Amino acid sequence: MEQNSENKVLSKASEERQVQHVLARYTRAADQLNGKAVADLFVPDGKVEVYYGRGGSRELLFVLSRQAEIENAMSNLMKPHPDRGWSHHTTHDHIIEVNGDHATIDAQFIRFDAVGESRPDNGWPEGTLGLMGKVTPTESGYYQPALQKISGEWKIVTLVILHDLTFAIPGK
Amino acid sequence: MEQNSENKVLSKASEERQVQHVLARYTRAADQLNGKAVADLFVPDGKVEVYYGRGGSRELLFVLSRQAEIENAMSNLMKPHPDRGWSHHTTHDHIIEVNGDHATIDAQFIRFDAVGESRPDNGWPEGTLGLMGKVTPTESGYYQPALQKISGEWKIVTLVILHDLTFAIPGK
Amino acid sequence: MEQNSENKVLSKASEERQVQHVLARYTRAADQLNGKAVADLFVPDGKVEVYYGRGGSRELLFVLSRQAEIENAMSNLMKPHPDRGWSHHTTHDHIIEVNGDHATIDAQFIRFDAVGESRPDNGWPEGTLGLMGKVTPTESGYYQPALQKISGEWKIVTLVILHDLTFAIPGK
Repeated sequence: MEQNSENKVLSKASEERQVQHVLARYTRAADQLNGKAVADLFVPDGKVEVYYGRGGSRELLFVLSRQAEIENAMSNLMKPHPDRGWSHHTTHDHIIEVNGDHATIDAQFIRFDAVGESRPDNGWPEGTLGLMGKVTPTESGYYQPALQKISGEWKIVTLVILHDLTFAIPGK
Repeated sequence: MEQNSENKVLSKASEERQVQHVLARYTRAADQLNGKAVADLFVPDGKVEVYYGRGGSRELLFVLSRQAEIENAMSNLMKPHPDRGWSHHTTHDHIIEVNGDHATIDAQFIRFDAVGESRPDNGWPEGTLGLMGKVTPTESGYYQPALQKISGEWKIVTLVILHDLTFAIPGK
Repeated sequence: MEQNSENKVLSKASEERQVQHVLARYTRAADQLNGKAVADLFVPDGKVEVYYGRGGSRELLFVLSRQAEIENAMSNLMKPHPDRGWSHHTTHDHIIEVNGDHATIDAQFIRFDAVGESRPDNGWPEGTLGLMGKVTPTESGYYQPALQKISGEWKIVTLVILHDLTFAIPGK
């Protein structure tokens, strides 16, 4: 089986897992602030709809339309990681429904931000063995992507993001 | 395939994923404080057993027996979310065993509580673009449900919850 | 089906899930500080490679080679849990590739540490019903194990761990 191409290998995974992999790759690309890699997970006219709220009362914050706008927002409009900083968008408790070439995921998400301590100029003092820094949960909510299988590959058509936290717009 | 009913679609998922979906739905219902939705995931005489501790030394805190008691506890005895608040019960690293019509899950859980900042009366000040508020992990432990497949649907028979944190009962 | 042995039952799960179960068992063994249980998940000459950093700039911190060294490090070199303390190594957004008898996982990880409050000598005061203590995220990064199926069981050959936080070595 070793000579199998990656495509053949991945095609053995269940449809549900293939769909879940798309969201897993989204979290990697988002943490890398790699707009191209994020946009590639969408169909050309894909959309990101960002809302405040969880229930019937959700309030639209903004929409990103088409790959170029998604790529630009992720690469240029997100706050860069601080020195020794990184983020982890993590997703949980996926409810996945696959219906032929269409699929939906409902997932919880938590974003964490990690910032490592900087090494003191004269080295680490005695008794400080191990990991130094802080990991902080900074965002939470739900990801609800709708996907379509096109030429054998699952792509995001619309990604609904529901944020728990208040979204501030200066002067509003 | 589009004409498939939801039931047919879900039946294509592996038994392990169907079982995992039950726990995913439990987290949604718990975060909505929706006792009816929680109770519906159980068999009529289902049970929730809540313990302090992780190992051989676990100590029983309380038991909820039958759907009505589970529904009442979740709808009426849980602390309501504060203004602009929400919770996320998240589950991780599931070990799932399916044996015919019986299944067990061993999952880690972390509960997060999110509270959004309230918008100042005269609007957000300059420089405050983005998400405002706090996400805090508040509980952790293990969920260990035992499930049974009844008329094609997986239901929880007993949900063992192991809490890491100390459980306070006033006067005790 | 009840008479099936555990092995037969587990063999019904997809290869991807069997592979994921190995990582789930790793998190359990790590949280129990059970070096023997951790080492048993590896092939006899398995390795753990621990790095600082996430991208091309990763920096090797240390390597554990063979089961005995892995077991010893986990059982004897890790900080023990404090009183009423426990940890949860949790993993997220797995990208799993199975190619015959070989497999890889790329997973995000977050470590949480929970410490329960100690019961006051004269009991809990009025108004303190419920869970008492703190849950804190303390580490984050990526687990990237490579696995091999040997005699029907998936074992870790090399576990690459990428830490986000700075690793302090006194005097360095």
